[in-house]
Amino acid sequence: MKNVSIAPDGREYPIPTAEESAAERDLLVKITEEQRKMGRKIVAVQGLGFVGCVMAAVVADAADKDGNPYYFVHGHQRASKRSFWKVPVINTGVPPVASSDPEVPEIFHRTVVEKKTFRATSEEFVYTLADVVVVDIQLDATKPAFGEAEKGYCDLTHFREGMRTLGQLIQPHCMVLVETTVPPGTCEKVVKPILEEEFTKRGIDIKTNPPLIAHSYERVMPGSKYVSSIRDFWRVFSGVNPQSIKLCREFLTNCLNVDEFPLTQLDSTNASEMAKTMENSYRATNIALTLEWARFAEQIGVDIFKVRDAIRKRKGTHDNMLRPSLGVGGYCLTKDPVLANWSMQSLFGLEGGLDVAINSVNINDTMPLHTVEIIKKELGNLNNIKIALLGVSYLENVGDTRHSPSETLVTFLRKEMATVKCCDPYVESWPELEDVKVESDIHQVLPGADVVVFAVGHDEYKVLKPKEVLDICGTKPLIVDCSNFLTDEKIAEYKALGCKVRGVGKGHIV
Amino acid sequence: MKNVSIAPDGREYPIPTAEESAAERDLLVKITEEQRKMGRKIVAVQGLGFVGCVMAAVVADAADKDGNPYYFVHGHQRASKRSFWKVPVINTGVPPVASSDPEVPEIFHRTVVEKKTFRATSEEFVYTLADVVVVDIQLDATKPAFGEAEKGYCDLTHFREGMRTLGQLIQPHCMVLVETTVPPGTCEKVVKPILEEEFTKRGIDIKTNPPLIAHSYERVMPGSKYVSSIRDFWRVFSGVNPQSIKLCREFLTNCLNVDEFPLTQLDSTNASEMAKTMENSYRATNIALTLEWARFAEQIGVDIFKVRDAIRKRKGTHDNMLRPSLGVGGYCLTKDPVLANWSMQSLFGLEGGLDVAINSVNINDTMPLHTVEIIKKELGNLNNIKIALLGVSYLENVGDTRHSPSETLVTFLRKEMATVKCCDPYVESWPELEDVKVESDIHQVLPGADVVVFAVGHDEYKVLKPKEVLDICGTKPLIVDCSNFLTDEKIAEYKALGCKVRGVGKGHIV
Repeated sequence: MKNVSIAPDGREYPIPTAEESAAERDLLVKITEEQRKMGRKIVAVQGLGFVGCVMAAVVADAADKDGNPYYFVHGHQRASKRSFWKVPVINTGVPPVASSDPEVPEIFHRTVVEKKTFRATSEEFVYTLADVVVVDIQLDATKPAFGEAEKGYCDLTHFREGMRTLGQLIQPHCMVLVETTVPPGTCEKVVKPILEEEFTKRGIDIKTNPPLIAHSYERVMPGSKYVSSIRDFWRVFSGVNPQSIKLCREFLTNCLNVDEFPLTQLDSTNASEMAKTMENSYRATNIALTLEWARFAEQIGVDIFKVRDAIRKRKGTHDNMLRPSLGVGGYCLTKDPVLANWSMQSLFGLEGGLDVAINSVNINDTMPLHTVEIIKKELGNLNNIKIALLGVSYLENVGDTRHSPSETLVTFLRKEMATVKCCDPYVESWPELEDVKVESDIHQVLPGADVVVFAVGHDEYKVLKPKEVLDICGTKPLIVDCSNFLTDEKIAEYKALGCKVRGVGKGHIV
Repeated sequence: MKNVSIAPDGREYPIPTAEESAAERDLLVKITEEQRKMGRKIVAVQGLGFVGCVMAAVVADAADKDGNPYYFVHGHQRASKRSFWKVPVINTGVPPVASSDPEVPEIFHRTVVEKKTFRATSEEFVYTLADVVVVDIQLDATKPAFGEAEKGYCDLTHFREGMRTLGQLIQPHCMVLVETTVPPGTCEKVVKPILEEEFTKRGIDIKTNPPLIAHSYERVMPGSKYVSSIRDFWRVFSGVNPQSIKLCREFLTNCLNVDEFPLTQLDSTNASEMAKTMENSYRATNIALTLEWARFAEQIGVDIFKVRDAIRKRKGTHDNMLRPSLGVGGYCLTKDPVLANWSMQSLFGLEGGLDVAINSVNINDTMPLHTVEIIKKELGNLNNIKIALLGVSYLENVGDTRHSPSETLVTFLRKEMATVKCCDPYVESWPELEDVKVESDIHQVLPGADVVVFAVGHDEYKVLKPKEVLDICGTKPLIVDCSNFLTDEKIAEYKALGCKVRGVGKGHIV
């Protein structure tokens, strides 16, 4: 097997040889010296994933009133076969992520090619040169059993390794800003002891040079405002000591739009870490509540979405109310309550747990089964039933399939021996369900369908006209609307054309 | 026993005799004829409780551009010993409720004495004269076991009687507007059949004269904006048929501030009834979530209120987040989820229930036990411990004790053999705990206290200076802050003066 890393477009990038690595390290020193002479501080971003790569670009784009950049940014990505390709791709000024946000390619081109303030590398050595390290290592929760989030845990092995690398390499004055969503207590109970241990091994006196560790969480949203969601948002932060807090405030103030979105300082990293997991638990719980009301609405002829709209008129007290759907996906609401619950028990050794939040995760994780029920209620046995699934990502107009509820839906429909054809214009491949072919064209999935499931609110699916859909189907399928994607007018049209229509929370159409 | 009704101020009002009732009925006819000649429609309000009496005054106050009142309002209260006194009191232009809202006495004086558009009566006969009946009968949920809201039910006996009275008396053109918070389905499954039955008995053809029934819920808040909370709010409404909807829209448009707070029409009364119970379930659930995070925060040195403030910076998505406290009281959040859960099972005969909402009610109902735990954790055995409780109402700056969490707290502290002295400047008597004397002056409860509990955020308690409190106590009591009523500065001062301070969700003070 060749020692190459293959990008999503199929291009192969050779993993650097030892000689190339040595040359790269020399180059890093040279670049860093040049940048310091220009008055810039040096930032290293650890992990060029979904958050890290754009955060790196935002930091590299930050400039003072006169347009002088504050920072030079080294993005660091390990030279693994899976991810090394990001390094050479970024260094041509191209983002390593697909996005509908036009600012994403712009900011990569501007910082890498024009300003030359952003460069990626696979050499860990880069941490020896940094004034600030921004930690964007991915950290997931593992839920070993479906619908039993209480058994979920957080494997910190990889994260700890990353921290150990920093402890071995960074200069004592370097501020480590943890941006990864972590279990509450991580900065104090995981990051600090590792850095202290490694500093001590290196002969650094941690009394005079305590590690400088801060935490500030992002609130990135994929989609058309991807870059803005990092730069233009109310950041919450704290640090493990006053100097960390000072440096973190300075860094965030330089990089982000704090005039419009002021910073909020909390008393401790425990508090800041808790804020992130609590805010996502809040949203997860609000969604979980809606499912039982959706079921109730379905059975008494009520449209829960109209009820929700009525309630949400009360701004400031009721307008956060979320909505029922196929289910909850993505990377935050599905795991953050689990991180916090696990932390409570495993990092702090406390009794009890975050039962409301965990119960909500369970309700949300199993929510797609309600759509299975809706279909079975109409069709009975699903053996050989042909189902066309419109949308497999977890969010409208985005191709991100992480923890997508469509995955659960497909898995359970297949258990019922249904034939499921999947379509999504934003998704090329579905890493979580590799044997499923995701079509981009509805003509590949609709013909002959017994059921058409509107699973995700992509614009492409919301504009579809009933007649058009049925002409392609050539059948009178059961139409299932998972989250109010069809207007009352369209529902009436489907019915007039001879279809049954059902939907989550939509009792008025029965 | 004299046949009198005794007002809260001790004044006695004789219950009307048969002759007096007959004279009153003649007077009602005369007044109504006069009012009709002045072009006014006639409204009867059924039930002059907390909502009904102010709603009646708001309707009586409604006028067109030229200041001509739209309606004459007959407020109806049955001639019971418990409540008849309201009739003569209102008819002197005095409100039958105490309130910190200066608009309450103003609107009663204006409508009863100046405009003469509002009058109270104890004669049911009044319903024969009405164009509109506004139903404000109180309807409660019964929870037979503490912490087991799933066993809660709704006794509709009294409500059904009220509807039967209307069915027997109203004219066919009269619109019945149910404003009481009712179990979803009540208008369709309870009110409509009763009115149809009584209409039919009276020879009214319900095909040509179907009963006109609408539902629109209030969102009244006691306190300094009591009247405004009825008049200046986004109303949701619907009706059982198009004519009901039309009349209801017309009535609400005349009476309320719909220019600034537009009406929302829903498809059915089921939907409108669901909206009210769902919005309060939403709030109950949001509060229940906060308790487990408060417990977590207490144990890891975090101030949950600062975390909450940080999260709430995100307007529109996170700013509805509520806060932990001693517990949840009042008349809405404690019962509305129970009404809906009971309706699902008993009015609609459906399987399953509203588990998230009901679980939240249980968490909220038992929340005061957490404050008991906080005290026991510090003091161990509470036998003979003297506890001063500051606040027994369910809401700050209001004297309403209905379902107050202080009631649960006192009950459980007494079980622990503690001596509890209660204070509340807004509460004269505590009907739910009649053997407890409620002092208005802290000098009556603080001296010798081992524990001082800041239970309710009355302004009077928030301004108390630590030195002042301790001087009156003459002790160094444990200070317990139930919902962030003490600033960090005051907490530091209490500590400097030798007290321990603890609080719900306030881990940073330990």
